[in-house]
Amino acid sequence: MATEHEELILLDFWPSMYGLRVRIALAEKGIPYEYREEDLIRGKSQLLLDMNPTHKKTPVLIHNGRPICESGIIVEYIDNVWNDKAPLFPYDSYAKARAKFWADFIDKKLYQTGRKLYTTKGEEHEASRNEFMQCLKLLEEELGDKPYFGGESFGYLDVSLIPFYSWFQAYETYGNFNFEHECTKLIAWAKRCIHNKESVSNTIPDLSKVFAFVQKEFALFDIKNT
Amino acid sequence: MATEHEELILLDFWPSMYGLRVRIALAEKGIPYEYREEDLIRGKSQLLLDMNPTHKKTPVLIHNGRPICESGIIVEYIDNVWNDKAPLFPYDSYAKARAKFWADFIDKKLYQTGRKLYTTKGEEHEASRNEFMQCLKLLEEELGDKPYFGGESFGYLDVSLIPFYSWFQAYETYGNFNFEHECTKLIAWAKRCIHNKESVSNTIPDLSKVFAFVQKEFALFDIKNT
Repeated sequence: MATEHEELILLDFWPSMYGLRVRIALAEKGIPYEYREEDLIRGKSQLLLDMNPTHKKTPVLIHNGRPICESGIIVEYIDNVWNDKAPLFPYDSYAKARAKFWADFIDKKLYQTGRKLYTTKGEEHEASRNEFMQCLKLLEEELGDKPYFGGESFGYLDVSLIPFYSWFQAYETYGNFNFEHECTKLIAWAKRCIHNKESVSNTIPDLSKVFAFVQKEFALFDIKNT
Repeated sequence: MATEHEELILLDFWPSMYGLRVRIALAEKGIPYEYREEDLIRGKSQLLLDMNPTHKKTPVLIHNGRPICESGIIVEYIDNVWNDKAPLFPYDSYAKARAKFWADFIDKKLYQTGRKLYTTKGEEHEASRNEFMQCLKLLEEELGDKPYFGGESFGYLDVSLIPFYSWFQAYETYGNFNFEHECTKLIAWAKRCIHNKESVSNTIPDLSKVFAFVQKEFALFDIKNT
């Protein structure tokens, strides 16, 4: 449990699905913090370079002067330190391992395949379309008939995946998908999160704003840095 | 805490540094299990395909019929379930996040760069040599003057890194390094682990055996599957 008088700073970049995970976790716990936007396109702050010298990436959570990096690790840290409210992990070790497995799958497969939707053409694009849809189908299977990935309550895997919903207009357009028809369950889940969880609705950027960002800024921006 | 009469099966591949993490964690906890060698070169077992349909990779720990995949997640699961002996994580949330950050760094950087030492030539090889040494230097810095990455006790980051030592003869040869001279602290740490921890000395394969494997089998083997 954290003590009072915390100094909490988040270095982030608004369209980042990884940063959004941290913003949602902090909102779930009701933790106040200072948000500092990083301009990853035009130049990173000295503070970011000092706080994450290894990867030089956002998000970085600075808690009383000490940096925590990598979104999954940050969300788990938040859950450990502020453990008096809205637990993100189940008590059961197997369910915990399973949530981590799928969050890892999102990082390794969904993110990488999603990028290819707007960075490849021809056969490679077609392959990435199929792979992306397969990823979503596997995630739908994992969701099953539960309201949330965390079961009755919004948990770690929900926090890990819901930020990607803000990129869905971009994915849909570049991948020529119709998610409403092709992934009914997943879209219903995303809308449930937005409808029921203020931590999501108050935090997640508008899909069209993210789409406009992808369209306008993509050429300038090395997406690897998001 | 686990109950008695567990059924515990590990699907693994002997030179895999990821599988070795699991074998070391199980040995640290003194947990008996059935080891099943997978022949990743000539064909994967149906059990592996059934237990890890998403990635089709070893290691997989099957605990009372339920699969746990991805080495870091498995080691953490083992630590959660068998929590009565040899804790692998510190109690402090920041130290825990830090151990996870560096284990993630090993997966993302050290492993990938290490592969390039024997899969690239020319400028790319030279760049990977420099990057590999930089990775080791960062890890040495993280170790500092502590006997283990876990401080006074052997912990999660030690478990995550020590398996790579079994590949050091291969890395050294293909990268033209002299680790004894270039990474004195890290080599001293590796020897300390082997000398003091039976979980390591009884588990880790001989460096020359791994080197012979890399030499002989590499052409046949898609290393991505390790």
